[in-house]
Amino acid sequence: MKENNTKNKTVKEKKTKEKAVKDKTVKDTVKDQAGKSRSAKAKTSRGKAKKPGTARAVADKVQIIPLGGLNKIGMNITAIRCGDDIIVVDCGLAFPDETMPGIDKIIPDVTYLTENSDKVRAFFITHGHEDHIGALPYVLQQINVPVYGTKLTIGLITHKLEEAGIAGICDCRVVRQGSSAKAGAITVDFIKINHSIPGSSALAIHTPAGVIFHTGDFKVDYTPLVGDTIDLQRIAAIGREGVLALLSDSTNAMRPGFTPSETMVATTFDTIFAENSRSRILVGTFSSNVDRVQQLINTAKKYGRKVILQGRSMVTTIEIAEKLGCIKIPRGTMISIDEMGNYPDNRLVIITTGSQGEAMAALSRMADSTHKRVSIKPGDVIIFSSNPIPGNERAVARVMNELAEKGAKLIHQDTHVSGHACQQEIELIYTLLRPKYAVPMHGEFRHRSANAQLAASVGIPEKNIFLLKAGDILELSESGAGLAGKAPCGELFVDGLGVGDVGNAVIRDRQSLAAGGMILVALTVDSGSGIVLAGPEIITRGFVYVKGSGDIISEIRNVVLDSLTECENRRVRDYTKIKNTIKTDLEEYLWRRFQRNPVILTVIMEAEW
Amino acid sequence: MKENNTKNKTVKEKKTKEKAVKDKTVKDTVKDQAGKSRSAKAKTSRGKAKKPGTARAVADKVQIIPLGGLNKIGMNITAIRCGDDIIVVDCGLAFPDETMPGIDKIIPDVTYLTENSDKVRAFFITHGHEDHIGALPYVLQQINVPVYGTKLTIGLITHKLEEAGIAGICDCRVVRQGSSAKAGAITVDFIKINHSIPGSSALAIHTPAGVIFHTGDFKVDYTPLVGDTIDLQRIAAIGREGVLALLSDSTNAMRPGFTPSETMVATTFDTIFAENSRSRILVGTFSSNVDRVQQLINTAKKYGRKVILQGRSMVTTIEIAEKLGCIKIPRGTMISIDEMGNYPDNRLVIITTGSQGEAMAALSRMADSTHKRVSIKPGDVIIFSSNPIPGNERAVARVMNELAEKGAKLIHQDTHVSGHACQQEIELIYTLLRPKYAVPMHGEFRHRSANAQLAASVGIPEKNIFLLKAGDILELSESGAGLAGKAPCGELFVDGLGVGDVGNAVIRDRQSLAAGGMILVALTVDSGSGIVLAGPEIITRGFVYVKGSGDIISEIRNVVLDSLTECENRRVRDYTKIKNTIKTDLEEYLWRRFQRNPVILTVIMEAEW
Repeated sequence: MKENNTKNKTVKEKKTKEKAVKDKTVKDTVKDQAGKSRSAKAKTSRGKAKKPGTARAVADKVQIIPLGGLNKIGMNITAIRCGDDIIVVDCGLAFPDETMPGIDKIIPDVTYLTENSDKVRAFFITHGHEDHIGALPYVLQQINVPVYGTKLTIGLITHKLEEAGIAGICDCRVVRQGSSAKAGAITVDFIKINHSIPGSSALAIHTPAGVIFHTGDFKVDYTPLVGDTIDLQRIAAIGREGVLALLSDSTNAMRPGFTPSETMVATTFDTIFAENSRSRILVGTFSSNVDRVQQLINTAKKYGRKVILQGRSMVTTIEIAEKLGCIKIPRGTMISIDEMGNYPDNRLVIITTGSQGEAMAALSRMADSTHKRVSIKPGDVIIFSSNPIPGNERAVARVMNELAEKGAKLIHQDTHVSGHACQQEIELIYTLLRPKYAVPMHGEFRHRSANAQLAASVGIPEKNIFLLKAGDILELSESGAGLAGKAPCGELFVDGLGVGDVGNAVIRDRQSLAAGGMILVALTVDSGSGIVLAGPEIITRGFVYVKGSGDIISEIRNVVLDSLTECENRRVRDYTKIKNTIKTDLEEYLWRRFQRNPVILTVIMEAEW
Repeated sequence: MKENNTKNKTVKEKKTKEKAVKDKTVKDTVKDQAGKSRSAKAKTSRGKAKKPGTARAVADKVQIIPLGGLNKIGMNITAIRCGDDIIVVDCGLAFPDETMPGIDKIIPDVTYLTENSDKVRAFFITHGHEDHIGALPYVLQQINVPVYGTKLTIGLITHKLEEAGIAGICDCRVVRQGSSAKAGAITVDFIKINHSIPGSSALAIHTPAGVIFHTGDFKVDYTPLVGDTIDLQRIAAIGREGVLALLSDSTNAMRPGFTPSETMVATTFDTIFAENSRSRILVGTFSSNVDRVQQLINTAKKYGRKVILQGRSMVTTIEIAEKLGCIKIPRGTMISIDEMGNYPDNRLVIITTGSQGEAMAALSRMADSTHKRVSIKPGDVIIFSSNPIPGNERAVARVMNELAEKGAKLIHQDTHVSGHACQQEIELIYTLLRPKYAVPMHGEFRHRSANAQLAASVGIPEKNIFLLKAGDILELSESGAGLAGKAPCGELFVDGLGVGDVGNAVIRDRQSLAAGGMILVALTVDSGSGIVLAGPEIITRGFVYVKGSGDIISEIRNVVLDSLTECENRRVRDYTKIKNTIKTDLEEYLWRRFQRNPVILTVIMEAEW
């Protein structure tokens, strides 16, 4: 519930504290060398990790504590605790749905981490998508520990922290895929996997109690156009060494088969460019899909077209990616929007944000003619290179309709592939790793439940498969597994600068206001006699079109006057009771008259003679 | 803008009027025999319909006037006018999207029809879906003319009119597929097509100016499990006789290929029933998909299960369908929910509403444990036999998650096929009919635009293809085509009993209230001196969690007091100006403090000393 206008102060106050925390982290790391060597043993043979109960016996067990990401897509954050070491995998936000009006984003409640701040060693981030990094600017203000990730992931995080004004005090560290980072007694390997943003990694988390393998968001692409294939050999090797638990991506677990390769998209792009050699081409895609942008740049170059990027996040992300060498832009291919006029339409490709129908994104603004530089015209070819995220379908449809009305040709067939594994890919990873326990992650319950069925189908006993709720503390060891309590957790709504000051009660009020509008009844009474001095004033908003609805205001006023008369006759003088009478009478009247339930507010002010 | 509580009176008043209208209709029919014989000629040869300009030359032209159904899926209603005869194809409603809080349904503004009520001869209804019949109870109260449709369509309409209390005064007439009905100089053939409700028809509308072919909602199913295949021979024959214009379903025009047959669904059902012989089976589907329910009943009988229907619309629709012979329920197959206890789980199939995640539907109530009779338990198999309608994805996901959490197994693969034609089917109909003009209907712009491309691809000249807007009057004849003006049209929101009293301004207010909540500032001043006698009272709703937000109410009060002081210092006494000052100051403060924009209401009441 921190307010942003007090942020600078808070940040300053924190600096001293953080230094203390950092020093502490280093100390902890040294202190736990014993634990680490045990971790090494755990790696070589699963059985050897078992230890009889000693003073440090707790490190024979590892706890998996998801603090978000299990009830909806988004807000991924999972604590892994072994003894006195806690590491956190990912720290994402979620986007609100239509039932949360006015909310900008949702971040996890990290009370569990702040309560155990002396044990939290580091964040390990699997990749740079918002649902995995978006809460860091909020959470690092509460727990400032090192953040590990691959090059682009850290680049994107740093940009976020700069925007929040806290980059200087945060400790972000780049890890290469194929190498490891240590935090207390825990060692984390970053392993190459395929996904829709470069640098996406699975994590093999070596704890004294065994290896926890976290897939991150992944798919298996044998023929990626940019970068390498998922490191199946390394994954297989880890599997041979023994894996205690597999935490795996469930997003597409309800889909049979195998997610198609990026190659399919490349083939489609090539055909589209070849067949539309006389048109300007626009492509809407995710700004974070750097490899897709790379493909488009390559195709543009092949067909002699210049590339223009549009949309703030597209420009920023590609700038960061280029600076870090995560995208190769051949000299002379990219031009600025100012140079657009120097080229004929059929030598241009505009790559833009807005493929999800986001109201303020560049493509939406082109569609509704509010984009300052690009006007859509008949003959333009517009490729939608993304699928609507569930909930965005209508917004995407609106944008498509507006573009079609301007005469553009829309192409959306085979222009996108998912970044998430389907059933056969998930089964492949289970089969390579052969974990003792399966903990399906990253998905709604139905997705994780489907993932659990896959785990069972490849031979993991049902008692070893866990469908967790956020806050569940799952304790695992070679000898057994079970829930060991509940961590505090929850969702904090971010609305403007406020974090957590809009909760479910406020949201319910907003929903009621939206559904029926509101009616205000205000009156002033003499504090001595109770005689009405002014009012009742009646104001409505969002209830009915007053001018077209006859004498609705007089009708309401008459109902209120009747209530007042009744209260007077019954000698009711208590203002709360009078208010309740007015409210009840008015509700009843409006339901009978309109079958509607507006929010009714009654104000009675006392004035003194 | 008729209110329901005045309905009875209105209906009585109408009875006399309607009789007059009916008499008139009959007279018109007789009067127009000349026109009709010309219509017959038009059928035999397209060329002969052409006439030199005479007193009745206007009947050489036919006007197509969509009054809805072109900007969104739903609210289908199209007037066809030839000379002094207007017929109306369909009269549907639309459902609101998430941007229209509190709205129950949307119906078309039929001012064009009421303004021409002396010419409107009849409604011809293609099939019984809400988006084709749902506005009739409202519209028939304004224009009471005969309604033609096939057996089930008329059965469903009659049920609606009964609920609205106007069935007795409406004239609904059943037409068999393969036969015709006349209205003025216009003759309408009802032609068998395939769709997701029995009795769905295409209409061949024979006007003196030529044949308008309206596909209705259709698909081509060569192997329907219930009923006949689309009457392609009849369609081909009409094509050979000559078709002036084809109005065709565009819903799936962006999808390549051919929509699969119901046979696919049947195969899936059979497999599911065979593989889950120990489980209770529940199936969520559309209540109107009578043939799907028939399939399920047949499969249940084959596997020795009893069928229970749940959900009000499911029970009602199947009752109507059975009474009309549109579904065959073998004796002893259907049981009531009260008998459920007499059978083991694996001898039961529950067919239920709620596959779209509708909050109050039976399946949703089972999912959230508020259904009184059915409790979902581990082992239950739940088949989703429908796809989410765009916009319903999240609601469907919520229901699926809740069901999965209760341990049910969800099946949604190959359990549904669309009722709408894909690209090859649309091309087939163009090819059989070879119309002079193409007018893609039933779909958002992008769908209709894709349909237009198909029309062009099968050889219709681009100048003969029309993508209309609601209200466009498209005038067609053998010699030419073009827009001939604009008919009044629009959407009326139905909210509770109110029709049209909630418009865009009210909706915008509701959106603002939803996005930021509201703050009320109320004060009472002495009418003479302007001295504040009471207040400022501050009340908020949906703005912020007040108890957890420190002294936000005091903060707001202080801002208001400062504004008042400033007004006093500047000797501002005009209440409107004072209110505006308070509003502006408060808006500025709240934006700085929270970056939020609540709705601010200020009430200043005058009291007399």
